[in-house]
Amino acid sequence: MNTFERRQWEVTEYPFKPGHILHSETIYTIGNGLVGVRGSFEEGYPGDSALTLAAGLFNQTPDQLVPELIPLPNWLSLHISVNDCWFSLKDGKILGYDRTLNLKEAVLRRGVLWRSPNGDTVRFAFERFASLANPHVLAIQVLVQVLNEGEHTIEVNSPLEPTSHHPEGGNHWEYLQSVPNQPFVTLHGKAAPSGYEIGMASYLDIEGATPTVLSDPAAPGYHSKFEVAQNQKVMITKLFALHTSRDSQDPVASATTTLTSAVKSGYAVLFQEHQAAWDHYWQHFDIQIEGDEIAQRAVRFCTYHFLIASPTHEERVSIGAKTLSGHGYKGHIFWDTELFILPPVTLAQPDLARRLLMYRYHNLAGARRKAAEGGYQGAMFPWESTDTGEETTPRWVPGLDGNPIRIWTGDNEQHISTDIAYAVLQYWRWTGEEEWFRQYGAEIVLDTAKFWGSRVEYNQALGRYEIHQQIGPDEYHENIDNSVFTNRMVVWHLQEALGVWDYLRGHYPDDATRLARQLGLDDATLAHWQTIAEKMWIPMQGGVFEQFENFFQRLKPINLEDYTPRTTNMDMILGHAKTQVSRVIKQADVVMLMALLRNQLGDDTFLRRNWDEYSTVVDHGSSLSPAMHAVVAARLGLNEQAYDYLIYAATLDLDDLKGNVRDGIHAACCGGVWQAVVLGLCGLELTENGPVTRPHLPEHWRRVTFRIFYQGKPMTITVE
Amino acid sequence: MNTFERRQWEVTEYPFKPGHILHSETIYTIGNGLVGVRGSFEEGYPGDSALTLAAGLFNQTPDQLVPELIPLPNWLSLHISVNDCWFSLKDGKILGYDRTLNLKEAVLRRGVLWRSPNGDTVRFAFERFASLANPHVLAIQVLVQVLNEGEHTIEVNSPLEPTSHHPEGGNHWEYLQSVPNQPFVTLHGKAAPSGYEIGMASYLDIEGATPTVLSDPAAPGYHSKFEVAQNQKVMITKLFALHTSRDSQDPVASATTTLTSAVKSGYAVLFQEHQAAWDHYWQHFDIQIEGDEIAQRAVRFCTYHFLIASPTHEERVSIGAKTLSGHGYKGHIFWDTELFILPPVTLAQPDLARRLLMYRYHNLAGARRKAAEGGYQGAMFPWESTDTGEETTPRWVPGLDGNPIRIWTGDNEQHISTDIAYAVLQYWRWTGEEEWFRQYGAEIVLDTAKFWGSRVEYNQALGRYEIHQQIGPDEYHENIDNSVFTNRMVVWHLQEALGVWDYLRGHYPDDATRLARQLGLDDATLAHWQTIAEKMWIPMQGGVFEQFENFFQRLKPINLEDYTPRTTNMDMILGHAKTQVSRVIKQADVVMLMALLRNQLGDDTFLRRNWDEYSTVVDHGSSLSPAMHAVVAARLGLNEQAYDYLIYAATLDLDDLKGNVRDGIHAACCGGVWQAVVLGLCGLELTENGPVTRPHLPEHWRRVTFRIFYQGKPMTITVE
Repeated sequence: MNTFERRQWEVTEYPFKPGHILHSETIYTIGNGLVGVRGSFEEGYPGDSALTLAAGLFNQTPDQLVPELIPLPNWLSLHISVNDCWFSLKDGKILGYDRTLNLKEAVLRRGVLWRSPNGDTVRFAFERFASLANPHVLAIQVLVQVLNEGEHTIEVNSPLEPTSHHPEGGNHWEYLQSVPNQPFVTLHGKAAPSGYEIGMASYLDIEGATPTVLSDPAAPGYHSKFEVAQNQKVMITKLFALHTSRDSQDPVASATTTLTSAVKSGYAVLFQEHQAAWDHYWQHFDIQIEGDEIAQRAVRFCTYHFLIASPTHEERVSIGAKTLSGHGYKGHIFWDTELFILPPVTLAQPDLARRLLMYRYHNLAGARRKAAEGGYQGAMFPWESTDTGEETTPRWVPGLDGNPIRIWTGDNEQHISTDIAYAVLQYWRWTGEEEWFRQYGAEIVLDTAKFWGSRVEYNQALGRYEIHQQIGPDEYHENIDNSVFTNRMVVWHLQEALGVWDYLRGHYPDDATRLARQLGLDDATLAHWQTIAEKMWIPMQGGVFEQFENFFQRLKPINLEDYTPRTTNMDMILGHAKTQVSRVIKQADVVMLMALLRNQLGDDTFLRRNWDEYSTVVDHGSSLSPAMHAVVAARLGLNEQAYDYLIYAATLDLDDLKGNVRDGIHAACCGGVWQAVVLGLCGLELTENGPVTRPHLPEHWRRVTFRIFYQGKPMTITVE
Repeated sequence: MNTFERRQWEVTEYPFKPGHILHSETIYTIGNGLVGVRGSFEEGYPGDSALTLAAGLFNQTPDQLVPELIPLPNWLSLHISVNDCWFSLKDGKILGYDRTLNLKEAVLRRGVLWRSPNGDTVRFAFERFASLANPHVLAIQVLVQVLNEGEHTIEVNSPLEPTSHHPEGGNHWEYLQSVPNQPFVTLHGKAAPSGYEIGMASYLDIEGATPTVLSDPAAPGYHSKFEVAQNQKVMITKLFALHTSRDSQDPVASATTTLTSAVKSGYAVLFQEHQAAWDHYWQHFDIQIEGDEIAQRAVRFCTYHFLIASPTHEERVSIGAKTLSGHGYKGHIFWDTELFILPPVTLAQPDLARRLLMYRYHNLAGARRKAAEGGYQGAMFPWESTDTGEETTPRWVPGLDGNPIRIWTGDNEQHISTDIAYAVLQYWRWTGEEEWFRQYGAEIVLDTAKFWGSRVEYNQALGRYEIHQQIGPDEYHENIDNSVFTNRMVVWHLQEALGVWDYLRGHYPDDATRLARQLGLDDATLAHWQTIAEKMWIPMQGGVFEQFENFFQRLKPINLEDYTPRTTNMDMILGHAKTQVSRVIKQADVVMLMALLRNQLGDDTFLRRNWDEYSTVVDHGSSLSPAMHAVVAARLGLNEQAYDYLIYAATLDLDDLKGNVRDGIHAACCGGVWQAVVLGLCGLELTENGPVTRPHLPEHWRRVTFRIFYQGKPMTITVE
């Protein structure tokens, strides 16, 4: 691979940028769907935020408002001293430094040339990966070489300490302790009250030395002290295994077994297997863009990040809004997964997609409880979801001024139930998986439809259905009535549900009968859906959608161009109260609707009028917004605008354009970027005759190639 | 211009990166050959290093070892308060920030959305340029807009203070004072002992307000206080004129006249004229690279930086090693100008090149004095040069440990005289300017040849000429004997001098007679040159050049790959003593020779053997090195390697790869980058039949287009 090609597969920090350490940690995260590990240094650094998270491992301590992913013990720790000086970038002098995330290999590498405080010149070359071939295995390798004359003493400490730091304090553990008399350094923990257990095992190998095990239960680990000659290269290998009670009855035993096997394979073989798994991923997910290396690299970066968060090992976990790369949103799962990440995964790797949809299926019970608690029927999915399927949106959060702020999204951002149905139907149409749809998918679509049947309100005076007290995608305006996004998506949802019902009755009458009984569907239900779909109010004004009732009348126009340049969101600039009455919207809302339903909404002229109205008042205060604008702009033939939105979305995390990447990767944005290229600029769509492309490439792009599955068949699509 | 094109013309900081402020100030420098202004903020910032320098304005205070460019009063200062809060990025909250240097327009812009400490939301849009149309004129424009409700009080201070901060202390001024009763705020200064005078005049215009002049002689400036409504846009314009005694008998009067005319033109017209001048520059200097936007932008960035340092106004100044963008090397001029910057300027804009060569011509007196002081004949150019043409290399500098270090380059890096001759001859050959060459160029070539005739030493025992006590381009090895670079270049120089002499005698006998008399040339001189050229020792060993006598025997090999990654130079890592005896070289030395004389040295096999020997032991401890490696690698057909070196050189300042860009732009590297593309990858060379190209493009480049002049005729060259 030459430099030009490498540049499109690598993200590099050179020289060291201490001012950006938290941003770097996030973007250099490695992971495999089961585990995510921030790109912190093995030896630590002041102000760093090392974090290892495991998918689905939520817990809520008594002092917490909502559950969160448990910060796990820091398995990364590896301390190396040279002639009694412990290596740290804060001490001595950095003579050279580079850090590279190779996206193709999913490997993080770091080189350091270091002058120790007592004057030794030492070279370090770190490499780490989270195996995709076996997601329970993680590995680090470090080359150490002392370059100045003389014999030198190297000391290595590789602790696996029974501690885990919670960013905001609090203890998740009923117990977390080292396990004596094991073949490896081993931890066993049990979280309370969730009851999740973890087993961690760690092994250290040093070329030419024999590490000893420190048996102190408070500070277990490996230790070694040995002599090296000038220029002698010493390779230190740390292998690590993690199991949890999500995947094992006895996580400690499983970790031991996994690690035994990993040690037997050795680093090189593990690395090779990891590569093979990633080669497979990239064969399916890589979009090749010729003529734009900045877009090329950024698109790969985004793809990498939703892939390292995509579960391959079980179907009761999903992808959090910040993946496993940071503690933002505490690991909770939103509509981000269904409308932003699922489309690429559905197209490129249906197996992965099905697992993510099954997460929702398994959590139907929670959605039904939420509906019932609200006095509704059917299934009403939670706005924020964890491992239980219960609503986990906090009702109150502390504001900047110390006063609590009421969060309404858990109550009123109800469109998520329809978003999930949308993802299910897309999956069905693209994959053609009848069996899965009959068994699982249809139930989600129908039971969420049933929820809407009970949720809508009939306005007797005006003879129409309405939905009050909603929050649309534009969260700057809370508890509004008749969100055009929600109302219109509900119409679509109910029509689709009726179609699904007809289809089942026609093709699979047994399933229809089973579901009718199970979900309580009868002719009256169906007739009711039909009526709602016909009589739902879709607010319009001046020939365009009105984002919600009184949007134009109530909200004061604001000239967004005056607020440039802007990193801070408009709601923070204007304040909550003023934002509520200002005509500035957080993110794609009507435009999001256009991305989802496109020509079902009207002709191109109508869509363009809506675009002109709404794309000019959007703050992109959510990272979800720019990619959807790219999709819609491309379809409207605004190719260069589409490209600008794409680049904004694709570099949002890489360049920290929102200033908050320290909290984690914007997962939805990453999925949105893939969509922006494939569904937007390349114009892929599913017609009655199968997939077609109607490309709207920016002038300087020469060729785009990507692969999808359509009804089980792989297709390579090239757009020029 | 769409985003893709703009990205190749713009260098942007977004969001604000306070950790990189000194690097940013350097790369965002504006200038016009007369004045250079670092990209500091108008309102200042803690730890910044605002600096305005004027070409040739050197002075040496009694406590200084060598002269330096005088830091001029900070004309940039512009302070704006909103409701009594003075705008500063260190106070309040930055809601948004971007800073863009548009290379095409040579304009620096900055946008800030700012929350003041008392809660006002304010938008600023700054723009500044140093007029290329009239280099005595500089201009700033600021848009201010308060976005929150209410009436607001704006206060503006635009000081032009009679102070100038020297980075290391010391006072250059005999006097520096405000001049009362002038139409503008005006300063007059006189440096001592150089006697240089400056006149500065500043004017402030505020839309809808009338600034008053502060008459306090210690703090002259403009002041204004006025009310604005919400969202009202206020435009503040600051115009500035600088003249010095280098260009005017009465710099104060000249500054007043220039500023009067500038005020009459107004900002918009000045901007337009500036644009027209830059359009002309880019027509000649722009290299268009299709298929590589990173290279494209970086090459333009480098071109911009040597252009803003190229004098257009007089021919007794040249370009310092760090341009006018920082205080590194105190503004001194090295061989960098002749061998790195002159080639592009000679090809693209011979008028500019001639001016730079005339700087050397005018300083022949100093070079003759230096030769005489050393006991030699002819002209021996100083290693470091300022406005006087005297040697200004410091003999001692303070070391890191406080002990003084002896600097030998001023004594022994004598190859510069030949480098200057090389530039003269290249200029002559490419431009065909007979008249200039007869009048000026030939004298430089011949008188420096005369120096060498007196400098070489005859080794009686071995019957050969030698040159002892030299420093070649590789400054890691000081005071060595028989530098192959120097010896071989001297041979070339004397042969060329003989050719020039024959040519003059044949075509312009009067000039030959005049020069013979003036320089004391006779048949014996010429015969002596011929003998030296024949009998000079060119050290060789094992079929390759030996960089200097005993290079292979005396120096211990070192494995440079062990010292990766490396930002710090190897001499700092190994220490001075160990570097002297290690086979690691600072920069292209034999490879530099190959870049200059190429096939005159031997066939491709021989060149390749030398490449393999020397390109593997080079530290690139000088920024001059990578671009020359690119040139040579390309000619050897190592296209991808050539590309890697090019990218290294082209991003060296942009990405601060050496970690010292705070001290100023690496001017030679910038010129080298242009050469690397045109002379290296595109393979432009001058044959007997005129210019030809033998391209060695990296695989992914599609097309390169550039323009040159050949013998007065413009040519557009496209390489595919």
